[in-house]
Amino acid sequence: MVAPLDPTSAAFLYAENRSMPMHVGGLQLFKKPEGAGRDYIREMYDEMRQVEDIAPLYLKRPHRSIRTAGQWVWVEDEQFDIEHHVRHSALPRPGRIRELLELTSRLHGTRLARERPLWESHIIEGLRDGRVAMYHKTHHAVVDGISAMRLLASVLSTDPDERNMPAMWAKQPERARPTGTVDRGEHSLSDLPVQALRTALGISAEAAGMPAALVKTLSKGLRNETSSLSLYAPRTIFNQKITGSRRFAAQDWPIDRLRAIGRATGATLNDVVLAMCSGAMRTYLLELDALPDTSLVAMVPVGLKAKQSQVASAEGGNAVGSVMVQLATDLPDPADRLARIHQSMVDGKRALSSMTPVQIMAMSALGQAPAILAPILRMQGIVRPPYNLIISNVPGPRTTHYWNGAQLLGTYPLSIPINGMALNITCTSYDGNMAFGLTGCRRTVPHLQRLLTHLDDEVKALERAVGV
Amino acid sequence: MVAPLDPTSAAFLYAENRSMPMHVGGLQLFKKPEGAGRDYIREMYDEMRQVEDIAPLYLKRPHRSIRTAGQWVWVEDEQFDIEHHVRHSALPRPGRIRELLELTSRLHGTRLARERPLWESHIIEGLRDGRVAMYHKTHHAVVDGISAMRLLASVLSTDPDERNMPAMWAKQPERARPTGTVDRGEHSLSDLPVQALRTALGISAEAAGMPAALVKTLSKGLRNETSSLSLYAPRTIFNQKITGSRRFAAQDWPIDRLRAIGRATGATLNDVVLAMCSGAMRTYLLELDALPDTSLVAMVPVGLKAKQSQVASAEGGNAVGSVMVQLATDLPDPADRLARIHQSMVDGKRALSSMTPVQIMAMSALGQAPAILAPILRMQGIVRPPYNLIISNVPGPRTTHYWNGAQLLGTYPLSIPINGMALNITCTSYDGNMAFGLTGCRRTVPHLQRLLTHLDDEVKALERAVGV
Repeated sequence: MVAPLDPTSAAFLYAENRSMPMHVGGLQLFKKPEGAGRDYIREMYDEMRQVEDIAPLYLKRPHRSIRTAGQWVWVEDEQFDIEHHVRHSALPRPGRIRELLELTSRLHGTRLARERPLWESHIIEGLRDGRVAMYHKTHHAVVDGISAMRLLASVLSTDPDERNMPAMWAKQPERARPTGTVDRGEHSLSDLPVQALRTALGISAEAAGMPAALVKTLSKGLRNETSSLSLYAPRTIFNQKITGSRRFAAQDWPIDRLRAIGRATGATLNDVVLAMCSGAMRTYLLELDALPDTSLVAMVPVGLKAKQSQVASAEGGNAVGSVMVQLATDLPDPADRLARIHQSMVDGKRALSSMTPVQIMAMSALGQAPAILAPILRMQGIVRPPYNLIISNVPGPRTTHYWNGAQLLGTYPLSIPINGMALNITCTSYDGNMAFGLTGCRRTVPHLQRLLTHLDDEVKALERAVGV
Repeated sequence: MVAPLDPTSAAFLYAENRSMPMHVGGLQLFKKPEGAGRDYIREMYDEMRQVEDIAPLYLKRPHRSIRTAGQWVWVEDEQFDIEHHVRHSALPRPGRIRELLELTSRLHGTRLARERPLWESHIIEGLRDGRVAMYHKTHHAVVDGISAMRLLASVLSTDPDERNMPAMWAKQPERARPTGTVDRGEHSLSDLPVQALRTALGISAEAAGMPAALVKTLSKGLRNETSSLSLYAPRTIFNQKITGSRRFAAQDWPIDRLRAIGRATGATLNDVVLAMCSGAMRTYLLELDALPDTSLVAMVPVGLKAKQSQVASAEGGNAVGSVMVQLATDLPDPADRLARIHQSMVDGKRALSSMTPVQIMAMSALGQAPAILAPILRMQGIVRPPYNLIISNVPGPRTTHYWNGAQLLGTYPLSIPINGMALNITCTSYDGNMAFGLTGCRRTVPHLQRLLTHLDDEVKALERAVGV
């Protein structure tokens, strides 16, 4: 039952400390099915706890001792206690989204216990509109954020009448693959060995297994500057040391609205997403009197239709590259910002396609695992990351999904702020909406929730600016 | 603004790790005042967050750096964020005490952030009977459990009509000392410097400042065996390595019932409390097929009317001694157990009074701070503590107390399980009831809440056995 952790997974355990918990999360909102009784959530919770056979992924805990020569290995938790992992929570009144985000922030700010499998699921009641929330957290040593979101989706169905659907952590040898989920090949995700899910670096297993070689590669790739790589991101309040408490904010917007803006200007959906972030951050930083004179730079993972990686890109393919995008936060006009972002993306992707595989790998590694690479970069004399924040955009299911008749209304990703990168924005699409998940250090990024208002204002500003 | 931590406080920071969070807690139940509206708890929460002037005790955070030569010092948190410390939580339905204890267990199992002042207060709504709960946690580097309970009580009033009472963390230069609270001398507790509250060792500041001298003293005191000191406590499931998650159970019983049992047998109230614990643990261990053949030994702090200490004892004086009590868990009859416990206490106290001050200090130190002393003892070749668990009994206010008209119905202490001591029982009296707070490691002490039923059964069994 003992399997060694691959070096990347282990790196996430080593890099973790109290101010940098290394878990990703997902917040889901469900609509109760027709005829759900007063005790629906309690019954759902009871059902979820009564899973007898747990999938291997959810039974593994990390372990190291003298017998493992101090190395981390995966072992099965022989005292598995499902009540530790599956929890029932409630919101104080009035039970608005505000109270939900507050609870989710708090849950995301505590570390997973290493004596146990590295996950927790919280069923949350008390939303005044009767919706049901679920927050799930998993250690980055087990899955990366994208795989985590896919795991959450992988147990859903497109059929509102389907019942007897097991919980995510149930072992399901006979489970038919739900329709409409992102294609994962032959296997259901939770049946894969832990190692196969570890795609944090977004590069081949070979490279992930060679941190030493990677350092050289990175160093080379970074020094060999290309237009897609800026080492001159300005200092911002986001690029400081962080503390352990978190603030999470999330909201979604109809994709049709964003697409209309894109169509009017020749920009992609992803360009519009970036422009929203840009405008929102500009307003936010202006309010704090902390806007740098030069543009913020975002690291954006992009797809190159290559096969080396399991990491999804904004275009739906596998991402093996990352583009450093000028967010144009120095420009006052929304349309100007969108145009500059669009151009920056085009340039970046062109540069990327002319990079050598080694350079691409370096870029990609840098983007996907800054937490474990930052110290390495520092050793190489690169004192700060060449970007201010990471903005990922991961496509999700396009159609409506259900869990035992409960309709999934929205799904929002929570990520990992790290020292020097106190804010993370991850977007994911689902059922016609683009969901934004903003995870920040509570102390370094004050009033994080204001960014939601600014994002909404920016959609309206872009619509006005491009005339849709 | 910089004050060094005394060595004892610092020891609690050094001893802390993920499986041994070093904070104490208190759970309080209040009855809403007459005419409280639907939003009473939300309003109470808002009021508590709107404190402008924070008492010094609640503003200090520990800090160490190269400039402090790696030593811990107290500094003021210049980015004090009251929303991090004062939190609003809710219970899932049906909102029974069971759900409250589950939430409290969870809150007690997460560590306090060291970048901030070491405390959190949670106002909890959702009890189906309409009561309001408060859970407060404070690091042991700031206050010991007894001082923490007193701090909680120190802001209450005996007057149900008193209003405009500030929150515990408010700075109150002009605050009149509420009547009916335990006498604390000239000062209100929260006005004392942090150091004066650190009474963990229950010994003079001089000794607390001399860990090295203490080691010798302890070693001497322990080897110089007396009848009050048994080095032969049996191994039990409680005396294992622990994990970081917690289970808390609490309940109270009318003191009149317990006193009646005592009167009928010549035993003290404290003897009856110990007999309840003994019977409950016997049943609990029998059910798990884990009852040792020989009696469990409890460390019980007792009072000697000495002035060297601020630690309260079961008799209301200052405790400077600890007695190792044979709990008589090997005897099947409740009355026999009570008789043996009574005798063991009498013997122990007699032995204690004939000990030298140095020996008493050693006993006391051992009892009050096992977490930091266990490693020292191990170095001295004493491989396990000479007792199975600590049972403290701390008198609280005898009359009904109120906070802005809300009646305090009950108050329950949460303590610190440590490696080798997975269960802690702390009792405190208030307004005619004896409250039991049981804090255990969730993994090492399974089904902790069963002990409550066993405690209740034991009261009845004792009543039958002694004929009251």
